[in-house]
Amino acid sequence: MRCPAADDLGATGPPAPAPPEVSDIYEVIHRRRDVRGQFTGEPIPDDVLARVLAAAHAAPSVGLSQPWDFILIRSAATRAAFHEHVMHERDVFAATLPDSSSFEKIKIEGVRESTLSIVVTYDPDRGSPAVLGRHAIADAGLYSVCLAIQNLWLAATAESLGVGWVSFYRESFVQEMLGIPPSVRPVAWLCLGPVTHLESTPDLERHGWRRRTPWQEAVHSERWPSFTPGRED
Amino acid sequence: MRCPAADDLGATGPPAPAPPEVSDIYEVIHRRRDVRGQFTGEPIPDDVLARVLAAAHAAPSVGLSQPWDFILIRSAATRAAFHEHVMHERDVFAATLPDSSSFEKIKIEGVRESTLSIVVTYDPDRGSPAVLGRHAIADAGLYSVCLAIQNLWLAATAESLGVGWVSFYRESFVQEMLGIPPSVRPVAWLCLGPVTHLESTPDLERHGWRRRTPWQEAVHSERWPSFTPGRED
Repeated sequence: MRCPAADDLGATGPPAPAPPEVSDIYEVIHRRRDVRGQFTGEPIPDDVLARVLAAAHAAPSVGLSQPWDFILIRSAATRAAFHEHVMHERDVFAATLPDSSSFEKIKIEGVRESTLSIVVTYDPDRGSPAVLGRHAIADAGLYSVCLAIQNLWLAATAESLGVGWVSFYRESFVQEMLGIPPSVRPVAWLCLGPVTHLESTPDLERHGWRRRTPWQEAVHSERWPSFTPGRED
Repeated sequence: MRCPAADDLGATGPPAPAPPEVSDIYEVIHRRRDVRGQFTGEPIPDDVLARVLAAAHAAPSVGLSQPWDFILIRSAATRAAFHEHVMHERDVFAATLPDSSSFEKIKIEGVRESTLSIVVTYDPDRGSPAVLGRHAIADAGLYSVCLAIQNLWLAATAESLGVGWVSFYRESFVQEMLGIPPSVRPVAWLCLGPVTHLESTPDLERHGWRRRTPWQEAVHSERWPSFTPGRED
């Protein structure tokens, strides 16, 4: 089916393969998964972890503010306490569903099985008061932190590690548990470590929660589309 | 100097190089720049643009909601109108600085010189009401959009294109100009296209606005640090 919203870039199917000199990054981008059940708990060599963290720190940031921090958590006690909190929040979410049967089989975290956790935070005071590029968009610093997270995720994937972003938690719980000041915001709790394998299909799609859309549906020309074909919501 | 905050991963300097099979992505991550002055305006081949957009769309998203859209803007009139708005916001920011002399020489956008613009948006209604993983963190969908942006940025860099994120604008201006509904939030205005070269040092560092910190300063063990050496703010 011809999809005019796709800006004439190829209406269906995957794009043409990249030439060999640029294809490696695409392999990593498309192989990357949000891991829950495949962590082995094996150690991460220090040099690998250093490369992954340096890659995160090399992300672009508004006004070169580099407003992120990475707290590495190996403590079993801290991770057990967080896990308990996540299980509670899982119940909170399940209670909002009209029918939670499809949610019940979905694993939402690998906090205890993964090798370590990395809490990524955002400090809006870094580089303030005059953060170049943030006066009109207060969230621009928060965006920078997410760019660092994706660098971390891709670097870890290239290193054959799995990453799982856990988001069933209250920010205030993490702040209190880790002594994070009220002005600094936890953005992500990431599980990291060696894995048995990466699934070729995202967990939520495998378990029938939701299916990925073709990339062409997200691409539009010149203006917001008045109608997007094939979109349910 | 030994830096205990760095979690024993190597206290100073860059991490050890990656083995050849994983090093390509690091080369891209560290070569990537936020481009303003190096755009040539030459065309982007359709297959290249398709790969870059498909890479963005392959990002992880909370609850597999894929809440992003990409509006490709080639219209010179639209870009000229946006450029005028950005110049106004530049003046607004400059007026807040006690001394704007170091800001005056910094170019903040390449909207008219680049080949095209891509406006990236966030639609919180995608996949709602029950977005898995968003009940406790309302911004989780916004974070997903930023992960897609970093995929786009790295893919473009691998394709020898430059990307420049312009953030001197009011979201409401972009919504109105492009017919974006009030419920959908513009997250980024990206300039994209071939470049003469990528600078080896970020513009803001070259122009003395701010210097990058060593990655080790952003890494901590187990808890938020009570004191971070070498940090000014």
